[in-house]
Amino acid sequence: MNFEKYMTRRVKPLKASGIREMFKLMAAPAVISLAGGSPDPELFPTEFLSEIAAEILKNDGKKALAYGTTDGYAPLKEELKKRTEAISSFDKEDKIIITTGAQQAIDLVARTVVEDCDDVVVEAPSFVGTLNSLRSVRANLIGVSMENDGMNMEELEGVLKNNKVKLIYTIPNFQNPAGITMSLAKRQRLLELAKKYDCLILEDNPYGDLRFAGEAVPTVKSLDKEGRVIYVGSLSKILSPGLRIGYLVCRSELCDKIEIVKQVNDVHTPCLTQMMAAEFLKRYDVSAHIKKACEVYGEKCRFMLECMEKYFPKSVSWTKTEGGLFILVSCPDSIDAAALSVEAIKKYKVAFVPCNNFATDMSAKTSSFRLNYSTMPKEKIEEGIKAIGMLLKEKLNKQ
Amino acid sequence: MNFEKYMTRRVKPLKASGIREMFKLMAAPAVISLAGGSPDPELFPTEFLSEIAAEILKNDGKKALAYGTTDGYAPLKEELKKRTEAISSFDKEDKIIITTGAQQAIDLVARTVVEDCDDVVVEAPSFVGTLNSLRSVRANLIGVSMENDGMNMEELEGVLKNNKVKLIYTIPNFQNPAGITMSLAKRQRLLELAKKYDCLILEDNPYGDLRFAGEAVPTVKSLDKEGRVIYVGSLSKILSPGLRIGYLVCRSELCDKIEIVKQVNDVHTPCLTQMMAAEFLKRYDVSAHIKKACEVYGEKCRFMLECMEKYFPKSVSWTKTEGGLFILVSCPDSIDAAALSVEAIKKYKVAFVPCNNFATDMSAKTSSFRLNYSTMPKEKIEEGIKAIGMLLKEKLNKQ
Repeated sequence: MNFEKYMTRRVKPLKASGIREMFKLMAAPAVISLAGGSPDPELFPTEFLSEIAAEILKNDGKKALAYGTTDGYAPLKEELKKRTEAISSFDKEDKIIITTGAQQAIDLVARTVVEDCDDVVVEAPSFVGTLNSLRSVRANLIGVSMENDGMNMEELEGVLKNNKVKLIYTIPNFQNPAGITMSLAKRQRLLELAKKYDCLILEDNPYGDLRFAGEAVPTVKSLDKEGRVIYVGSLSKILSPGLRIGYLVCRSELCDKIEIVKQVNDVHTPCLTQMMAAEFLKRYDVSAHIKKACEVYGEKCRFMLECMEKYFPKSVSWTKTEGGLFILVSCPDSIDAAALSVEAIKKYKVAFVPCNNFATDMSAKTSSFRLNYSTMPKEKIEEGIKAIGMLLKEKLNKQ
Repeated sequence: MNFEKYMTRRVKPLKASGIREMFKLMAAPAVISLAGGSPDPELFPTEFLSEIAAEILKNDGKKALAYGTTDGYAPLKEELKKRTEAISSFDKEDKIIITTGAQQAIDLVARTVVEDCDDVVVEAPSFVGTLNSLRSVRANLIGVSMENDGMNMEELEGVLKNNKVKLIYTIPNFQNPAGITMSLAKRQRLLELAKKYDCLILEDNPYGDLRFAGEAVPTVKSLDKEGRVIYVGSLSKILSPGLRIGYLVCRSELCDKIEIVKQVNDVHTPCLTQMMAAEFLKRYDVSAHIKKACEVYGEKCRFMLECMEKYFPKSVSWTKTEGGLFILVSCPDSIDAAALSVEAIKKYKVAFVPCNNFATDMSAKTSSFRLNYSTMPKEKIEEGIKAIGMLLKEKLNKQ
């Protein structure tokens, strides 16, 4: 049978995330992965979660195993509401929904507000999971280039003037893949422009807790008095990505509709993982846990930067991140980062992600790539950076 | 702000499932719920799962808490492949994907093969979760009426002749809400017609294990040599609905695309719940567990039927189910089942689901309703049926 003819226009052009495909290669133990976006597994509170899971199932097993409500387990909603208030803001007209990872939150928003050929602004480059989700609802993606303090606002206004943009997607803190944080002035400008051109903003903040340098900047949501911002958070980077706990906060009128779409999508997020997350937020020393994670990532980031200074050719530059998990490396135009990444895996078993994966046009050639410093131990980071440096020098010397 | 204008045509007409809304009412402890579709919580293997969860997190915590692959945890895929082979069939060209409940499997199929105005055949009545999922991709739903041995095949052929149907959705075993099982002859005819008119079949089999009377009938998938059937299974009814473990099996060409849509949707189903399900299938005495469940549901079903004979007016009839969780009750046309259900909750705190929830046109008046016998203890079943009987007699005597 030929299944192609049954497939919708929505899914026909969809390709698997290059990173998820790389994930399969990375499963080989010898691979040095600077490609992922995972927190350091050494930081998982496995012992605590082991005890908590047993306790929940023993004392409250019927609740943990029965159907739950679509909007999420009430005590977890309460804890995440408090967290949102602490990190960002929670308006009295806001509601919260627990999702199966932040990816589902983003996907639900895409399904709810974006349809065929709607113009959507994304940072260029941006997170592949969101780009693919938006592609799957046939959005017209418009990239706005990134500067060291976030989106280029003149370029953004030009785009908004010349198109009917419905949604602007941004990761203001330690952006994926650029590692860049949007300045306060630009956050304010972003909101002004969204108001002027009547767009919604999707603020994705998975890395916000992981600041190891510089000063915190208020979230876009906390600057928003109208309800224009849909805020997405995640426990993937501070607790565990495998538990798949994300959430979204927005005005109830919109949130109620998103809840119906979630009902259609998976009825509800598993109860047990939600109950575990609630106990983690209630009973674990979360501040100390995050502080520890920031120390570890700060140290690993500094070490990776030192290695890059040491091993990378001088014509290569990179972004300065103050938190999160990523550094973006820019090479001279002659470098084809996609080809380089294939060679790095084959020759040295070193994995990283070329930036075509983060582009609105994935077929365009790119000379940039993303490095992750959170998952590997130091000796592997050095080995990996050294190998990439050798490859780069080889390529650049040949010319 | 007015959010209505941002919402897509897909989601604007979507309404929350009446059953999920009722679920909120049912949370009150005094309510006698004959409305749900849950297994009996007394059957949950809570102690086993408590030990298993602790063990997994203790010995294999890093795997349970890290990102997993989109298609699912390999040992669970292996176990579910074996189960599919035992219950149905698993072709060498088939693949399996683990989903966050069977609802996600159905929703992924809808997103992958159905788009604006595609004709989709559903049984009339049918499962509201699937109807809403299909509505959310703007399918044109065409209901084909149910007989005591499944869909009316003459009616189906008429529909296929006069429309361009892409997909036929069926629950052949102990259908939700009708409790009806499709005969072997009709399953074969369904496949013939799907072949003749070139449609895919979505076979949803959440209740297949729960047969307490009569003889098993082969799945539609097991009769299919071409790969026309997409088979959806679930552990919700035999293990736990709250763990949200579903799966789908179909030809790899289609499955690979569905996997990409899942990646976009939630990256992957939580690892811990998948690992728990794998251990349940490997180490628990699943056959004995299912046998026990069938005994319990068979006994409760017989008891409910006895109560109905005793308390319901003679002009009311119902379907004879051989398994699963539901009985469909048909009243004289003068009864408005939706109004009746509201009165039953208000007057007697008894909940059941009127059949407009299961109709392609939810606004149409209905004189039928669905009863569930799996969740309540016997004394509550009797109390509930007695109350509904009183209401019915009151209505019918008034005329």
